[in-house]
Amino acid sequence: MATVPMLSDDQASPESCATFEAIRAARGTDYVNNFWRALAHDPALLAATWNRLAQVMAPGALDPLTKELVYLAVSVANGCDYCIHSHTAAARAKGMSDAQHAELLAVIAMASQTNALATALSVPVDERFRVTSP
Amino acid sequence: MATVPMLSDDQASPESCATFEAIRAARGTDYVNNFWRALAHDPALLAATWNRLAQVMAPGALDPLTKELVYLAVSVANGCDYCIHSHTAAARAKGMSDAQHAELLAVIAMASQTNALATALSVPVDERFRVTSP
Amino acid sequence: MATVPMLSDDQASPESCATFEAIRAARGTDYVNNFWRALAHDPALLAATWNRLAQVMAPGALDPLTKELVYLAVSVANGCDYCIHSHTAAARAKGMSDAQHAELLAVIAMASQTNALATALSVPVDERFRVTSP
Amino acid sequence: MATVPMLSDDQASPESCATFEAIRAARGTDYVNNFWRALAHDPALLAATWNRLAQVMAPGALDPLTKELVYLAVSVANGCDYCIHSHTAAARAKGMSDAQHAELLAVIAMASQTNALATALSVPVDERFRVTSP
Amino acid sequence: MATVPMLSDDQASPESCATFEAIRAARGTDYVNNFWRALAHDPALLAATWNRLAQVMAPGALDPLTKELVYLAVSVANGCDYCIHSHTAAARAKGMSDAQHAELLAVIAMASQTNALATALSVPVDERFRVTSP
Amino acid sequence: MATVPMLSDDQASPESCATFEAIRAARGTDYVNNFWRALAHDPALLAATWNRLAQVMAPGALDPLTKELVYLAVSVANGCDYCIHSHTAAARAKGMSDAQHAELLAVIAMASQTNALATALSVPVDERFRVTSP
Repeated sequence: MATVPMLSDDQASPESCATFEAIRAARGTDYVNNFWRALAHDPALLAATWNRLAQVMAPGALDPLTKELVYLAVSVANGCDYCIHSHTAAARAKGMSDAQHAELLAVIAMASQTNALATALSVPVDERFRVTSP
Repeated sequence: MATVPMLSDDQASPESCATFEAIRAARGTDYVNNFWRALAHDPALLAATWNRLAQVMAPGALDPLTKELVYLAVSVANGCDYCIHSHTAAARAKGMSDAQHAELLAVIAMASQTNALATALSVPVDERFRVTSP
Repeated sequence: MATVPMLSDDQASPESCATFEAIRAARGTDYVNNFWRALAHDPALLAATWNRLAQVMAPGALDPLTKELVYLAVSVANGCDYCIHSHTAAARAKGMSDAQHAELLAVIAMASQTNALATALSVPVDERFRVTSP
Repeated sequence: MATVPMLSDDQASPESCATFEAIRAARGTDYVNNFWRALAHDPALLAATWNRLAQVMAPGALDPLTKELVYLAVSVANGCDYCIHSHTAAARAKGMSDAQHAELLAVIAMASQTNALATALSVPVDERFRVTSP
Repeated sequence: MATVPMLSDDQASPESCATFEAIRAARGTDYVNNFWRALAHDPALLAATWNRLAQVMAPGALDPLTKELVYLAVSVANGCDYCIHSHTAAARAKGMSDAQHAELLAVIAMASQTNALATALSVPVDERFRVTSP
Repeated sequence: MATVPMLSDDQASPESCATFEAIRAARGTDYVNNFWRALAHDPALLAATWNRLAQVMAPGALDPLTKELVYLAVSVANGCDYCIHSHTAAARAKGMSDAQHAELLAVIAMASQTNALATALSVPVDERFRVTSP
């Protein structure tokens, strides 16, 4: 159960409905998922979050699927169950194959393991990893 | 300072030295970074970690750079400073451009933000994200 | 489902029931929420946790609502779903308005984002943030 | 050591320098701290982060000091050392007393402890914490 | 709901079924729990995870119950609800008493609290904790 | 650098000095480590933390070394560098052998990996892990 009511189109303010419409237009679907309906109580936060997300996830130096895989990996590491479900679905919608999903999971598992070891050992950063001035 | 001594080639056991050699051969460099030298006290853990890493990070359904970006993203979310440095360096060695690095950071920041919001709101998972049986 | 049975007043030991009574008296309600009933198997841990909580959350240099907002923010960052629900309810009971809740969420989201960026960039602490001796 | 060079005013692009100037104007100080200099490689991320931060931390339903305390609490829970230092300094600059700092730490410690217990026990959320429809 | 279908014996590949049989043989039970059935889509990841787990959790310098307690503690700190349930059950199956469970919870709570305090205070590591060379 | 000055015996209040003496007496050493000196600004928090720690870590249903191993494991999972160093040292002082340390690290790495996988897969808890009423 959410800690706030999730607003339907009838319950949301005109500002929040405008963001719902922007989400529908960008995604080519009438469905607005629960995350946005839960944010709709705060039209400014809803709009700021959606607008920034649209910018960040747009094609650029990284392709959209790679960005989804990274988003999903962060969501796993942060233990956000909602985000894991929504971004697994989003990655599939952007073409993630079962084989890619499986490799993604293997990389996440590997990183989690070596993160724990490096932290437990408090390994000092190698001098050669130092970034030089521009 | 590490919680264990980091072993030089002279200090490491023959089993650990064999893994050092495997690392050198796979990477085409004589340099063995601190993480492996810290693990060298436990030759079995060192070998198991390296062997699994080599399998997981090999080219497959995902290309090596994508895997590095995911690895780096997990390391940031887990707050492992050593891993952030080593995998930023590894991603650059595999071709990560400054623009790709910048977009990676933007995606990680975005995910961290929406992870926190979805968690704070305890948003229920949408029924349509449900996976159907095979 | 909990990993231990939650004890009713009939099932709890006299020591645990005494803490239940202290909770009821402090809060002016007969209801004892699930967290305390799950802790009731260990009367010493139950009493130690409640007693310390009562001390820490009492009015002091910070007012009780501010303390609840901080408690809620930590619970979000730690991803504790139970605590998010119980402390959202507690903050509302102590007067948190919808507008305050919305701003709290915005601050948590902002912090989560810049935490990730500062960690990813491994930004060194500025010398001027150094605390001087007393 | 940072994973990117931190840019001085001479090294930063005109767009990044414009954000530096906005930071100086808002804070009434010539000093631009390391976080912003590390972000300066990506003028768009730098500007987006600063602009959103300025909005979120402005006085509103919550006063600026309360927002800083929440920001600091999240940074502690996320283990961001840079952010802990910068927001401890910011909270002091906004009037946090030693007594308030001490109480903040006590609340963070308390929340961390009960978060762990509620998670370990997997306590189910009480029905009465459910939010009713608007 | 899982992000992948969980495979029954009829649905799993021969390779995955072979790992199911290894799990059954090692545990002396016909029951294969959901974690392994969710991993079964990737026979290589399933086998690698099980084989490594069997090695790591085998009796050695630490007894199996101690290893389970550590595993459970890590799972709590990482907020993995599934793992908390499965390893609480495993620890009980290996002899964890109610009193041991209660003390384990008290240690986890204590560590979570002092972890937060040491992080918030950014306490420098004492020179005498430094490990000397071999 | 700490976010508060660490207090010497000369700088600390009589109440804090009394806790320093309790620490010395319990440990049989004159050395008071930095964590307690950083807490000394808040004599009540210092005393509450030390007194609870002494209770929790005392021999009971679990032996002191097992408790230290759990404490260390939690500290690794929470990424607390200070705590990792202090509790690695404490575990060694209580008899942790190199072989036990190595196995501890292997269990922590294994748990971190399967925690990530179970979270990424959102594996539902098996019905048979359900705890029955007393």
